[in-house]
Amino acid sequence: VQRIVLLTEGFTEPGTAKTASSVLRYRRESVVAILDRTEAGRTAEELLETGGDVPVVASLDEIDSADTLVLGIAPPGGRLPESWRPIILAAISRGMNIVNGLHHFLVDDTEFVQAAEKHNVELHDLRRNNETGIAQRKGLSDKCLRIHTVGHDCSVGKMLTAIELTKGLQQRGHDSHFVATGQTGILVSGGGIPMDRVISDFVNGAAERLVLENQHHEMLIIEGQGSLVHPSYSGVTLGMLHGFFPHALIMCYEVGRKWTKGVEHVPIPPLAMIRELYETMAGVWRPCPVIGIAMNSRLVDAAAAELERERIETEFGLPVCDVVRHGPEKLIDAIVSFNSEREVND
Amino acid sequence: VQRIVLLTEGFTEPGTAKTASSVLRYRRESVVAILDRTEAGRTAEELLETGGDVPVVASLDEIDSADTLVLGIAPPGGRLPESWRPIILAAISRGMNIVNGLHHFLVDDTEFVQAAEKHNVELHDLRRNNETGIAQRKGLSDKCLRIHTVGHDCSVGKMLTAIELTKGLQQRGHDSHFVATGQTGILVSGGGIPMDRVISDFVNGAAERLVLENQHHEMLIIEGQGSLVHPSYSGVTLGMLHGFFPHALIMCYEVGRKWTKGVEHVPIPPLAMIRELYETMAGVWRPCPVIGIAMNSRLVDAAAAELERERIETEFGLPVCDVVRHGPEKLIDAIVSFNSEREVND
Repeated sequence: VQRIVLLTEGFTEPGTAKTASSVLRYRRESVVAILDRTEAGRTAEELLETGGDVPVVASLDEIDSADTLVLGIAPPGGRLPESWRPIILAAISRGMNIVNGLHHFLVDDTEFVQAAEKHNVELHDLRRNNETGIAQRKGLSDKCLRIHTVGHDCSVGKMLTAIELTKGLQQRGHDSHFVATGQTGILVSGGGIPMDRVISDFVNGAAERLVLENQHHEMLIIEGQGSLVHPSYSGVTLGMLHGFFPHALIMCYEVGRKWTKGVEHVPIPPLAMIRELYETMAGVWRPCPVIGIAMNSRLVDAAAAELERERIETEFGLPVCDVVRHGPEKLIDAIVSFNSEREVND
Repeated sequence: VQRIVLLTEGFTEPGTAKTASSVLRYRRESVVAILDRTEAGRTAEELLETGGDVPVVASLDEIDSADTLVLGIAPPGGRLPESWRPIILAAISRGMNIVNGLHHFLVDDTEFVQAAEKHNVELHDLRRNNETGIAQRKGLSDKCLRIHTVGHDCSVGKMLTAIELTKGLQQRGHDSHFVATGQTGILVSGGGIPMDRVISDFVNGAAERLVLENQHHEMLIIEGQGSLVHPSYSGVTLGMLHGFFPHALIMCYEVGRKWTKGVEHVPIPPLAMIRELYETMAGVWRPCPVIGIAMNSRLVDAAAAELERERIETEFGLPVCDVVRHGPEKLIDAIVSFNSEREVND
């Protein structure tokens, strides 16, 4: 078992430190501390809304037992904060392996490579890949249900929703499988492809490969990335939508979010329009409906969340819930019901 | 001036050898021969429908004066035909520089690198790039008109249409500029970014950068890639559409094409649906109409082309022409008219 320190120094808040949050949520038993001098003495729960009493520490000296440093942030562009370089080098010199989800690869950085060789530790770049396959739109079996979580923006809970749906379906006895498509999902599940790092010509093909390799399961719950209406990342989103060729979609959104993450001068279009865009683009060759809505009500209280839930349920005529606050049961019902009613032709 | 041999051996037909065709069309003065043992003795015009009497030769011995070998094909996946390896090595050993638009980079291939060093020649990989910018949707000036050529499929004439429109607008005195987005466009224009080789996270950003660096011109005519309804490449297409954030679109299609290139079991949706998809996806933040249709009538005779032209013009209520057969005047009229009527707010 790894003994992980999550490095989030200077970024320990739920938006940017979403890699750290998810490791705390899904691999908490492996986490010994969060490393952030600026927040030392507090707990994970206080800063990241998950992780309970996992401590925030100021120095690796306080946590001698750790063997792995996970870089816990996912900023736009995936650059390495330069202030982290000495922290990472210090971890390497203590013999810790480094797990990195940034676009900046440690194995291409001479200083890190030399240090790692000297101290005999591993550098693991989660986004590294060598995808070179073109999508063929062949061999995809309709026997395996493909559900894809999509969103109105980045960082609204598409991964978390997919994981919770997968677990909930498993608890009901279904052979459901979570398909990770980003560094955090890969880190918590141990498989998948970092789609936003794939060469653009091969994004649809990489998505298709993930289906072909996993469709021995009864159901795939496939994590989405970005958004069809995100000016910076929409290409990744559509490539995945067409490569996965899902049967149905779960649409994720954050209550109250009005401006596009990373380009905050760009308004997010109305949710009804976004639903139509997803159904239209996913439905070019055959219908692919949104069958449920996952609301992320993190920023509002329980009463406001319930009001919003009812309002959206009425407006869209679809089951709506916050998978953290309410649990995923309503969406699981929707998936099971959709699966039992659809026609399977192969 | 370069003296180019176009290598198309085994692939000398307009579909796959589109790089060769375009070099013949736009840089014919630099081309001394086509290299293809299987078609030697014929002419470029006979095989590629352009290039006049440029000869097809069986061996580099026949064209001593050549100094550059251009790999003249753009196959799906961009792999290097293994049968070409000895041909390329022979060219290198004669002191020829190699220009390569495939995904397979010569500079990453030890055998080619060693040969190039020995014979002191250059290996130029057109698709190599180091794009790492995220689109910001900032700084795009509406003073510069942005026209984007989009298509119902791959290889229907989006680049050719963009070049012909650019030239035609220049002939009418406009400061129009062709923006290349693929290896062939880059090869014939000397600038641009190979969008399908950009890391997917950065496609929208690379497109935006091309606008920001060229918007001192009055008009940009921006080459499209792939298609929103191509199962293999749609991600690239949407990333470009949102990164370029065009004011209007010219839709390109090939008369009679029914099945998607490379995935010939997948039907191409009706053109009216495709127009709507482009206008919808380009129009998320503000309207972006299709203002004209470029038909590629290569495979039908003049009478059939005219019938089709009239039919599509009536169905869509838009100007329609084949920029090769009829010239681009109708579409140029549409662009000039659109530009004079639109409101410019900055």
